[in-house]
Formats: sequence, structure tokens, C-alpha cells
Amino acid sequence: MKLNSKTTILGLMSSYEESKLVVFGAPFDGTVSFRPGSRFGPSAMRTGSLGIETFSPYQNADLLDIKGCDAGDLPLPSGDTKAALDMINSFVYNIIQDEKTPIMLGGEHLITLPAIEAMIKQYPDLCILHLDAHTDTRDTYMGVSLSHATVMRRVWEKTGDKRIWQFGIRSGEKAEFEWAEKHNYLTSFDLYGIENALDIIGERPIYLTIDLDVLDPSVFPGTGSPEHGGISFMDLLNFILKLRRNTIVGSDLIGLVPHYDVSGISAAAACKLLRELALLLAI
Amino acid sequence: MKLNSKTTILGLMSSYEESKLVVFGAPFDGTVSFRPGSRFGPSAMRTGSLGIETFSPYQNADLLDIKGCDAGDLPLPSGDTKAALDMINSFVYNIIQDEKTPIMLGGEHLITLPAIEAMIKQYPDLCILHLDAHTDTRDTYMGVSLSHATVMRRVWEKTGDKRIWQFGIRSGEKAEFEWAEKHNYLTSFDLYGIENALDIIGERPIYLTIDLDVLDPSVFPGTGSPEHGGISFMDLLNFILKLRRNTIVGSDLIGLVPHYDVSGISAAAACKLLRELALLLAI
Amino acid sequence: MKLNSKTTILGLMSSYEESKLVVFGAPFDGTVSFRPGSRFGPSAMRTGSLGIETFSPYQNADLLDIKGCDAGDLPLPSGDTKAALDMINSFVYNIIQDEKTPIMLGGEHLITLPAIEAMIKQYPDLCILHLDAHTDTRDTYMGVSLSHATVMRRVWEKTGDKRIWQFGIRSGEKAEFEWAEKHNYLTSFDLYGIENALDIIGERPIYLTIDLDVLDPSVFPGTGSPEHGGISFMDLLNFILKLRRNTIVGSDLIGLVPHYDVSGISAAAACKLLRELALLLAI
Amino acid sequence: MKLNSKTTILGLMSSYEESKLVVFGAPFDGTVSFRPGSRFGPSAMRTGSLGIETFSPYQNADLLDIKGCDAGDLPLPSGDTKAALDMINSFVYNIIQDEKTPIMLGGEHLITLPAIEAMIKQYPDLCILHLDAHTDTRDTYMGVSLSHATVMRRVWEKTGDKRIWQFGIRSGEKAEFEWAEKHNYLTSFDLYGIENALDIIGERPIYLTIDLDVLDPSVFPGTGSPEHGGISFMDLLNFILKLRRNTIVGSDLIGLVPHYDVSGISAAAACKLLRELALLLAI
Amino acid sequence: MKLNSKTTILGLMSSYEESKLVVFGAPFDGTVSFRPGSRFGPSAMRTGSLGIETFSPYQNADLLDIKGCDAGDLPLPSGDTKAALDMINSFVYNIIQDEKTPIMLGGEHLITLPAIEAMIKQYPDLCILHLDAHTDTRDTYMGVSLSHATVMRRVWEKTGDKRIWQFGIRSGEKAEFEWAEKHNYLTSFDLYGIENALDIIGERPIYLTIDLDVLDPSVFPGTGSPEHGGISFMDLLNFILKLRRNTIVGSDLIGLVPHYDVSGISAAAACKLLRELALLLAI
Amino acid sequence: MKLNSKTTILGLMSSYEESKLVVFGAPFDGTVSFRPGSRFGPSAMRTGSLGIETFSPYQNADLLDIKGCDAGDLPLPSGDTKAALDMINSFVYNIIQDEKTPIMLGGEHLITLPAIEAMIKQYPDLCILHLDAHTDTRDTYMGVSLSHATVMRRVWEKTGDKRIWQFGIRSGEKAEFEWAEKHNYLTSFDLYGIENALDIIGERPIYLTIDLDVLDPSVFPGTGSPEHGGISFMDLLNFILKLRRNTIVGSDLIGLVPHYDVSGISAAAACKLLRELALLLAI
Repeated sequence: MKLNSKTTILGLMSSYEESKLVVFGAPFDGTVSFRPGSRFGPSAMRTGSLGIETFSPYQNADLLDIKGCDAGDLPLPSGDTKAALDMINSFVYNIIQDEKTPIMLGGEHLITLPAIEAMIKQYPDLCILHLDAHTDTRDTYMGVSLSHATVMRRVWEKTGDKRIWQFGIRSGEKAEFEWAEKHNYLTSFDLYGIENALDIIGERPIYLTIDLDVLDPSVFPGTGSPEHGGISFMDLLNFILKLRRNTIVGSDLIGLVPHYDVSGISAAAACKLLRELALLLAI
Repeated sequence: MKLNSKTTILGLMSSYEESKLVVFGAPFDGTVSFRPGSRFGPSAMRTGSLGIETFSPYQNADLLDIKGCDAGDLPLPSGDTKAALDMINSFVYNIIQDEKTPIMLGGEHLITLPAIEAMIKQYPDLCILHLDAHTDTRDTYMGVSLSHATVMRRVWEKTGDKRIWQFGIRSGEKAEFEWAEKHNYLTSFDLYGIENALDIIGERPIYLTIDLDVLDPSVFPGTGSPEHGGISFMDLLNFILKLRRNTIVGSDLIGLVPHYDVSGISAAAACKLLRELALLLAI
Repeated sequence: MKLNSKTTILGLMSSYEESKLVVFGAPFDGTVSFRPGSRFGPSAMRTGSLGIETFSPYQNADLLDIKGCDAGDLPLPSGDTKAALDMINSFVYNIIQDEKTPIMLGGEHLITLPAIEAMIKQYPDLCILHLDAHTDTRDTYMGVSLSHATVMRRVWEKTGDKRIWQFGIRSGEKAEFEWAEKHNYLTSFDLYGIENALDIIGERPIYLTIDLDVLDPSVFPGTGSPEHGGISFMDLLNFILKLRRNTIVGSDLIGLVPHYDVSGISAAAACKLLRELALLLAI
Repeated sequence: MKLNSKTTILGLMSSYEESKLVVFGAPFDGTVSFRPGSRFGPSAMRTGSLGIETFSPYQNADLLDIKGCDAGDLPLPSGDTKAALDMINSFVYNIIQDEKTPIMLGGEHLITLPAIEAMIKQYPDLCILHLDAHTDTRDTYMGVSLSHATVMRRVWEKTGDKRIWQFGIRSGEKAEFEWAEKHNYLTSFDLYGIENALDIIGERPIYLTIDLDVLDPSVFPGTGSPEHGGISFMDLLNFILKLRRNTIVGSDLIGLVPHYDVSGISAAAACKLLRELALLLAI
Repeated sequence: MKLNSKTTILGLMSSYEESKLVVFGAPFDGTVSFRPGSRFGPSAMRTGSLGIETFSPYQNADLLDIKGCDAGDLPLPSGDTKAALDMINSFVYNIIQDEKTPIMLGGEHLITLPAIEAMIKQYPDLCILHLDAHTDTRDTYMGVSLSHATVMRRVWEKTGDKRIWQFGIRSGEKAEFEWAEKHNYLTSFDLYGIENALDIIGERPIYLTIDLDVLDPSVFPGTGSPEHGGISFMDLLNFILKLRRNTIVGSDLIGLVPHYDVSGISAAAACKLLRELALLLAI
Repeated sequence: MKLNSKTTILGLMSSYEESKLVVFGAPFDGTVSFRPGSRFGPSAMRTGSLGIETFSPYQNADLLDIKGCDAGDLPLPSGDTKAALDMINSFVYNIIQDEKTPIMLGGEHLITLPAIEAMIKQYPDLCILHLDAHTDTRDTYMGVSLSHATVMRRVWEKTGDKRIWQFGIRSGEKAEFEWAEKHNYLTSFDLYGIENALDIIGERPIYLTIDLDVLDPSVFPGTGSPEHGGISFMDLLNFILKLRRNTIVGSDLIGLVPHYDVSGISAAAACKLLRELALLLAI
């Protein structure tokens, strides 16, 4: 007798073997300093995605026509940051060794570090598009070097200067803004300049990391660190659609803290963006 | 001794007999597939309308100057879709026979079908303005032909081609979009083109049906199916104000699911739109 | 490469083939008349069960020592009651044909009908233990014969008199109480008399159906129909433990409506009871 | 054409003229010092009572067999305490002049003062049963003499010593406890001694005032001033049932603050108690 | 031994003596007619401000570089409006006598009256910038002259004509709009015209009072009176930034009702605006 | 000019120097594996304690008669467990060197370890009363030795066998129960046996650590790990009152996660227990 399937994100039902796209959860929020809970983000997206159609009128494309799977959540140990990051790293590395494209669901932003470390082994000229309300470029945070607040600094140590494009940034220390302007491409407050960025990147592979708090809190209240003055949903969707002509080799969507949003509109935003990302990466 | 009055929507206090406008609730959500609860929409609007002024600075008009009543909620049987629709149909038919204008508060979108069926008996050339996030034009949904997801298809079977103008649509199956473009006037994503629609409609009577999820979820989180990328409150308000020179013979506001919005801003949006609609229809 | 597993209820990880116990969700609430939403019960229990230990100090037993699986949720069509019930019926029938024991998670109470119909084919002398705040023995409800409010009447039509023991009942029509006292064994308000019931049942197989609203709303606020004066958690747990010497061939836990309980204590209660049930049935 | 009825509390549908029982709301909370919002109590009870059966298995009696009406909410001016109290006073006085029995729904506890003042004109030997977590017997509160915290002191000024029985009290200033023990009958923490109280009262008429925070916060979280260590629902229900042989000439249920309880179990408790009260007073 | 500090708003840590800026709470909401609770606004801002950076990328300035303190909440008596207003008046007067600049956190809007009365003693030519969804210019409200709904009328009685600039207004009685247009400068719906206002004001000192419900409810759901069609966060922020060349001698931020917003985005908006205001006033 | 005071817990207003009792917050929840957020416990208790009277009718004693202060929250670095524990350790040590009695508010349970380490330096024969739903006696948890799940094992390493009395325990691994029975005094499910424990302890000093999840989730829903079958509020209160004849040299109340309880009844329970503890320790 055939087993019924459990809830999978966006209803993705291909086997891992036949999938081009692999979506998985990394439910870790161990270094969060203010309001934790993004560890419950992936499971909230599984429930929320029941309300999302498979067809995108924006791309005139349908999830039913792609090969993708939901690999579930990684069993990350809470309280042991290093072990959690290692587990993410090898999972992502396996996915790209299997010639598939990963989309990781957070969790907090530190999980992006091991994913990029895995990607960069395969793609040494990897470029990073980073959408976020926060710079995340402290050297250390409260004495800790592996932190949600330092993750893009750690990433930069792998890539070197001018390989990271930051968009939507509107919060950080003064020193972080100064550092980021010197070492990265920094766009404060909005997403303007993506066309120019894509021109500079050219044929190089791209990793796209989206902290969903780049959205305005009115659109995405389910966040640990609401930072007003953010971008609209359509701005973010249009940003994603502009990436169509480029090579995205991996991506993540992080920062959904479901219990701060009983309406579920934050999970719905995350799921709709995931659908558009999935269509972009898998077709 | 005179009895005190119960809470009425927007404080409308005329008797049915003297009213030009009749507002009533149709608390039915029996075919909803994702998140139910719009059956509680009308009662949430009665409470929420306590916070709404009677004066509209947008129309420079006041509810105190119109004749309208709140006829309460229809006692619709849950679990028997057909009986519920019949009850709505005859209630609406009576209202128009009494030469009054109905505004129905939902409930789910299927309730629009019997209302329009009643209207069309009186106004055979009725035109429909349909604002919604979803096409609602499936032929059947999970095997069911009377469904929130099929309602505009059933309406079309009564009106025929090119009598329905759909606005704000951003979700549906691919086949639904294709069908709607062929048989109706379909405007995806926004409300542009209303002036042109009104030109085509000319002197014909209009029924206006608004699924409040046409609004962006940031404005209206109290919905069963949050669909981001929606229109703003002022876009919807301005749309309504543009209808002033036309003949609206009936209307509905559906889709408020109050328990997904503890802030009550969704009920407040519904009530403020209802005030503007009431002023539009009753003056 | 081995896929990571998705969240399973209580962490049950055996394959279907090797399992003695099969837990699955039946997310249907189509006939609910007051506050719907139990369709989200099973997924809330999957998330909630992450906080539950596998060891029971009450039974001195551990889930790690049993063979059980989570078969996921049945894809039940909303709006087509009959099709949904048929799907449940054949799924349950297959489980018992495979010589396994089902625990079904609701969903509303009507789902118990097809489960019992499947059981009774195999066990014609099946006895029913029914825990609930409500009699659920109307003949029809608002004209509907297949309803959450009629389910135990429909079950009785299969079993005949004195095969159903009802406990904890404290709400219903006067006629329902009178009917139930005549045809079933009715215990109002509490769970007293279970020992006597078990004596009468003797060696016959038992199906145990628990509407979680039998618990007091203080313990279980996540219900569509809070009915005060209910039993305590320990009363219900002790009731379950008393069944140890009998043959339970199937069971269900229904009625969790997660969005009425942001604290999650209702899901936690359901999961802890499920652990005790699972240990009882699988050892 | 006949109008549909609006939602009435417990579905009471008799006309005022034919009613023996008159239920009405007094949505005033102007003197509350901690968490306001009981002004929304009556409307939450109207919605909540949709989930309550008309039949009581505790009294074996049915609301369908009594004559009662819901007179709606009094339009009390916020910010003008005296005017609000006057309006309540004359409304209650009219009810008893019409030889009907009032049940008033709060609102805060100060509304009990004008109700009792109206009753005492008719019944000079009126005795008061007062259930509450708080003594409410300050002389003034923050300089104010008409306050939720002084209401039973003001009542005592009308009745004199040993006419008030206080039950369930577990919070107050030391001086209040001492004062209450001297002038009233004070039962701290529980409801013991009601039989004795009824013996002393004898044939005299009784006004029953219930601040719902006498219930434990686990049973009734929807309160402005949660005070743990309260009584259970069944304790309160049994207290009410013991009054059957006495003459209750009026009653109130106050203190529901619905927005502190998204589950609605507090409104459900209030409605179920109201049903039992209504049956007690109207049969 | 040195005591640890309690949570202070925005982490302001200077002593009162060394501070140029004094932030304090006025937790009074006694005249609110619809949904009360702004009395909890200041404490919610203290918690919420833990998530706010001290650096503003909008002003390129840092709170670490200013001298400011959090003076805590005034112990205002609930139920005695006049005493509460007097306490505010003398506290504000002391602050300006000490040559410091106050920012008062509400609470409801009536608290602005005593603050302005204190300011005007020192600055007889004080001009008022008033941002709000509501006119607040009734003469009396439900018979009360000191009310949230009359506050700007009372202020006008101190200033005379054309000293108050009102922005963002979109709700009120018809007579209020007419009155305000005659006696004040009234800008309905948006914030346009601030440059012109500043030109007219010239060198005169300004008091800035912001009812946060001027923001759209999507941005600021934590309000007692959600009024859709409001301004965006960036509109309000840019308005504040335009005041840089003028002399703001005092300000307030009022109207946060935290329990209507479980996400905390409203408190976050208030805190971020407070940071910008603090930087504007203290540098 | 004198500054107004900020909100202090229970209104405690003595200076540190004159205080016998020092209450402070330790807002750390870095090792929590399931639902975090107890870092916000102390601030929620400060707000919640505004609703608590200073007089206890249970002890016939008043906080106005004791000398106590609220020392605020320790600025604990998130992400650096060891540094946080060190900071707590030295703060507690200073308090007892100053001959005062600490009550620490959590935060998660790991904070109890450094507090006890500080106490034991002063009181080598310290005995521990531990109330909790969970054993907390794992040796390591997910590879981590300093964890909320291991804290009582670490404490035992300081005290040795039979110095810890555990009460209310109803969750843990099988091995934990076995270990605890061997090395500690373990009372599962309830608080029975406290008199016997106090007899054995005799004159030795006691540290009382209360994980508030020892309470039943119906009483205390604001917890990260709801575990049904817990004790009632009055059971816990009576337990505390029984300690009157013994020497409590320090205590903590941990585990309040405010955002899981919008009603605030959990914070109210914590505050009322704190009042009773404060009266017990300071008189």
C-alpha cells in the first residue's frame, strides 16, 4: 500500500533524485540577540504554502512543470553553533555535488555562512546578492565572531572585496556602514542599482541571500527585528524577476518568526517569494 | 417604554420601511478550502464600526443624512450550501422588489451568486464589477461546482460574455486566467481601466462585488487567503469614488476573517469602505 | 545520498511496513457550525510534538521502543463531505487489513464515522468509548444528516443499542440526552464508571474516540466550541491508563483548532495524550 | 416584509413587553485603573453565545421555555461617570417598574451601584450577594469616590451593615479586609457558607452581583486584573444553582475584557453562566 | 556597589542633570471613547527600544553622542483627569525651567494640552505642528470639555487663530473640519505643505505633537482608532527630517496601544521615530 | 529637581543600600531547544506587577513594610553562555556579601547554576529545593554541558548527593529519572513530602529555585515547554507558605515566556508568587 505524503513546501513532490531544485529548512536561531523564534520559520512555511497556487501570473509559469523536492528540516543541535553550521555546510555541498540547486529556509542569518562556504568550493568566483534591513558586517557581536550580526563579514573573508552587493540596508552601527561601503557594494534603503550590479557580475555565478526583514514590517510583521522604512512586496518580487537572465546557483530565504504574526501574512509573503524563486531557479 | 437599540452597522438607525439602503450579513463560509472564518465577518464589522465617524471627508457627505438600516444576519444553515444560497436569493429579491438597494456583508464569495441571480431577474442587462485577488473562475473545485473558487464562472453562466469586469486579480490557475481573458474583461494586479469600463457599461445597471482580499495583506491581514502584491486602501477607495456617476443597484463586501487580525485593522478597513459605499448608493 | 526526514508526529520514524501503529491526519471540518479550523489540527500537532519527550513516566515506557509511523495527512476534498468520508474509510480499512492499529487525528468529529465503519467490517462486535463535551446524537442538524452534530447517531445505526459508552457529556439538546440515555450508556459531566464499562465490554474490541473538548477549556482552549465544566487533563490521562488491560483496535483524537490558542498548550495536551495512547496501543 | 433579527444574547427572542427577563449591556469602564476594555464585554458575549445550547443539563431546563429579551447596550457617555450611572439607574428602575427581572452585563463593577440604587427603591430590604476577587470597599481610590475600587463601599452606604455577603475575595488593601469583616459578611478565597447566608437572608429579596474575576484566571483569562487562586467554573455554577429556592430580583455579570482572550473561553464561560442565571430567574 | 540600570528608553543613560533631552511617559488614557490601552504605550516602547540601533543612517548621527535621559513614567491618577493634567503640566514646566527639551510619550492625546500650557508660559509665541488622523477639535465630546476629541480646541484657546498647523487629518465631524479650516492651517490626508508652514513660522519656537495614528494602520496597527488612508512611515520620517533648521522646543509621541499589535511593529515604529526626534532635538 | 522613578517590580522602592531583599532580572535564554523568549520574562513581570496589590491576605503582610529594591536587568551577552553565567555569579555573590537576599527572575533555568555557585561559596551546606516540570539532569544535551536541560546535574556536581529535593517533575528521559532518584530526592508529579524534606534539611540554609512550568499549563500558558498534568496555583502558593519556619537565603523564579500568553495571566501568576516570596524572605 502506498503511503500518503506529508505536507511538503509548495506541494513539491518530485523525488530527490529527479529534482533539479532542493528546498530544505535550517531551523537554527541560536545567536539571535533580540527576539528569537525563526527556528519555527520552515514549518510555518510548510503550513502557509497550502494557500499558495502553483501558477505564477508574474512569470506565466507553473510549479507543476518543474522538478523539485522538499528535503525537510536539518536536525540542527541548538546550543552548538559550530556543529549546526557544519551540518548545513555538508548538506549544501552534497546538493551541489549532485548538480542540484539549493534553496535554504531559515532560521537566522548565520546559516548563510556555511551555505556560501559550500558553494564557493564549487564556484570560486561566486558573487553574493544580499538583501537585508541590517548590514550584518560587525567583526564581532558581544564578543562572538559567529553571529547573525557578523555573518556578512565572515562571508566577505571568503570572497574578498567587491564580491558582495548589499541592498535595502537601513540599520547598523556607523562603523558597519563605513566598512561596508569600502569593501562591498552598499545600497541603503532600497533596491535601486540591481541592473548595474548584474552588468558588473556578468557571467559569474550568483548566490542570493534574502533576509526577509528587508521588507517593510507592514508587509512582513513576523520578524525578530522589525525595521521600518523597508521595501514593498512588489519591489522585492520585481528584483527577483530581474535576475532571470543570470545564473543563480543557490539561494536562501531567512528570518521568518511565525509567532509574531498570528495573521500568517508573513508566512504567505515568504511562500509566494519562494514560489517565484523556485520557478526562476528550476526552469 | 422604548427599547434601546442593539449595535447596528455604522449606526444605521432607519426602519426597513423608510430605508433606501439595506445592509445585511450573510455569514456563510461552507466551501472555503484553506482558512475558514468569514462567517464571523458581519459581527466583527458591527463591533468595528463603533470606531468609524459618520462623516466622510472624501465625499463631503454624512451617514446622518441618508436613510439606511442594518437588517441583521441571515440565519444560514451551515452544511447545506443550496439552502443557504436560496435564502440569500429570496432575501435580496425582496429588497429590490421593495425598491431598496442591498449591500451584503460576507461570508465567503459564493454568496455573491444568489445575490446576482436575484438582481438579474430585475435587471437583465446587469453588469458586474468584480474586485478580487483571485479569478474565482474554475469550472469545478475539488469536484464541487458551487464553490468560492467557481463563483464568477457560475455568474458568467447567467450573464454571458463580456458582462463581467475583473480587477486586481493576481492568483489562479493558468487555465482560469486564459478563460477569464476570453470571456470577461480581466485586469490583473491593479485597478487600472475603470474609466474605460464605465464608458463601455454606459447606462446599464452595475452590481459591485468586492472580495476584500483584493487589498494587500498589509492593509487587510484578516483574510483566509493572504495574497501579497495587492492594491492599497486609497486605490480601492478612489475606485469606489469613481463610480459616482453610474447606477450601482447592489453591492457586497466579502471575505473578512476577523480572528486572523487581533488588531482589528481589517474590520476597520471594511467598515470605512462600507461607509463610502453606503454614501455612494444611498444619496 | 539520504534525504533528511520531514517533521513526523512525536518523531515516529519507522516505515509503514514495519509499523504496528499508524498515525495519520484527517484535516476535514466541513460541517462545523460554529468556529471552524480543526483542519489545521494535525499540522499543529506535528509542530507541537517537537516539545514532547519520548519517555512517559506515567507508563514507564518509551516511544523509542515501539514501531510506529506518521502517514501524513489525507488529501481530503473540502466541500464534498461524502468523498472525504470515503477516502478516510478506505485508508482505515487498509490499515487494519495490514494488521496495524490506526490513530486518526482530526479534524472535526464526523471523520469518526467512516473510521468506525471500516473497523466494524473487521470487528462486528466493536464497542465504542466516546469522550466528548457534546452528545453528537442529533438525527439531523440544520437539515443535514452527515454532520459533526449527528455523528454518534450515525455510528449507532451501525452498532445498535448499548454498544456505545459516552463520557463527559455536558452539552446538547434535551431530546439528545433523552435519546442517548435510552440507546447508549451515557455518563454526563465526568468519566466515572469506566471500570464498570470495561467489565461489560469484556473481551470485545474497542474503538476509542476522543473529542478533545471533553477537557475543560482552561486546559484546552484551542477548540471550536468551548464548553466549561469539563474534565481535567489528569482525569483524561488516568482514563486512558485504565484501558491497559483491554483491546483497543483503533482510536482518534479530534477537535484541535490551533488558531484559537496562541500559547500552544492545547496542541501540547493533544500531543501528550497521543504519546500515552501510542504507547498503550503499540506495546 | 419581516426583518431578520440581529444577534441577540443567547438567542433570546421575546419582545420586551412579553418578557419576564430583560438582559442588557452597560458598556462602561471609565474608572478602571489597570487594564481597560470591559466596555466590549457585552458585544463579545453576543457573538460568543452563538456557541451555547439553549438546554441546560444542570437544571434540566431550556431557554426556549422562558420569556426573555436582549434589550441591547445602553449608549453610555464615556468620560462622564455620573451621566452614565444615571442612565443605568433609570433603565433598571423602569425594568422593575414593568415587573421584569434585569440581568446587566458589564462593563466594570461601578455599574452595579446605580443598578442596586434602583432596586433598593423598590426593595428596601434588599440583600446583596457579591462574588469577586477584590474587596472593592475602598472609601476613595486615587482621590475618586465613584470607582470600580469603591463600589461596594458606596453600596454599603445605601444598605447599612450586614446586608452584603462577599465571596471569593482574595485581593485588596489590608484596611479594606478589616473594614469588610466589620461591616459585611466576608468570605475570603472561596464560596463556602452560602447555605448559611441564605438562611440568614430568609425571605428577603436578593441582588446577585458577579465580578467574573472571582473565577480563576485559568478559567477566565479575559479579565483586566487576573488574580490567581480563584474558584473553578463548577464552584461558581453550583453556587448559582443553590440559589434556586430564593428570590433573586436582579443580577449582573461584569468584568469580561474580551481582547485579553483570543480563545474566547472567557466569553464562553460568561455566556454559560448567563444561561444558568437566566433559567434561574425566569422560570 | 553600583546598581545595574533598569531598561531605559533607547538606552539613554545620562543623568537628568547632564541631559539636554528628557524623555518621559504620561500613561493616561482616561477619556478614550473607543479602544483604550495607550496607558501601556511608554512601557511597550521601553521593551521595544531594545531592538533599535543607536545610529541613524538617515541623519548620520548617533544617540551615543547626545545627552539624554529617560525620566520614567509619571504616576498619573486614573479617574481624575484634572489631577493628571496638572501633574504633567508642572513636570513639563520644570523641564523647560531647567533648560532642557522634553519628549513626552503617551497615553492619549489629551496629555498634550498641559504640556503645551507649560511650554506657552515660557514661549508665548509658540507654534504647534499637529500630526493626526483626527481633527480633535470638537468643543465638547459627549458633554465633556477635557477629552482626547477636544484637545486641539483647548490648545487653540491658548494660542488663538493660525498658530496650529494640522497634517494628515482624515477623520472628524463635518463641523470640525469647517472649524479647523477657519482657525488653523488644515492639511487633510497627507503632509504636504510643511515647507510653506515652516516659512510662515519663521524663527518662532515649535511644539511638535504626533498622534501616531496619523500613520496608516498597516504600518501602525497598535492604535485604538485605526483610520485607513494614512501616511507611510517614510513620509513621517521625512517630515521630521525637514524640521532640522527650525527650533523645536518640545514634542510628544502619543497613541500607541500595544495589546492590539502582538507583532510589536507599532512599538518599533514609535521607537524609531523617537530616535530620529531625539537626535533632532538634542544635537 | 527629583526624577520620577521608572517602573520597578512590585513597586519596590527602597535603595539598594537600605534593602534586605534584592530582586533582579537575568534575561538569558541562549540554550533553549524548543520555544525561546524567556529573556523577556523580567520586563513582562515589571509591567504585570502594576496589577498586583502590595498586601497579601495569605500572609497578612504588606510589601510596604519591607525593605526591597528592583536592581533591574543584568546586561547579559547573548551568544556567550559562559560570560553570561559569570556576570550572574558575581552579581549574586556581591548581594550576599552585602548581607542581602537575592531573588533572580529568569530567563531560562541555566541561570540558576551561577547563582547557586555564588551562594555555596558563602553557605557550603546549602540545600536546594527545585520545583520544575522537567528533571533537568541530563549530563549533556545535544553535546552541550551547560544547558537548560543539564542545570541540575551541574548543580549536583557542586553539592553532591542528597542535597537537592526535586518536586513536580513529570518530564524527562528515562535515564534522568533513574539518575535523579539515585542522587537526589525526587518527587514526581506533585509537591507532596515538603514537610519531610524540611525536617531533613533542618537548620541548613535553602536555595529555592522555581521553574514556573511546574504549574499546569492552564494556569501558566506562558512557557516555552507546556507540560500538562502540573500543579495548581494554590498548591504552589501553599508550598511557599510552608517554608516560613526555614532559612531561605536566595531564590529564583524562571521560565516566563510572555509572548505565548497574550492574556498576561502567566505574568500575573509569576508576580503574585514573587510577592509571596518577597514577603517570606524579607520579613
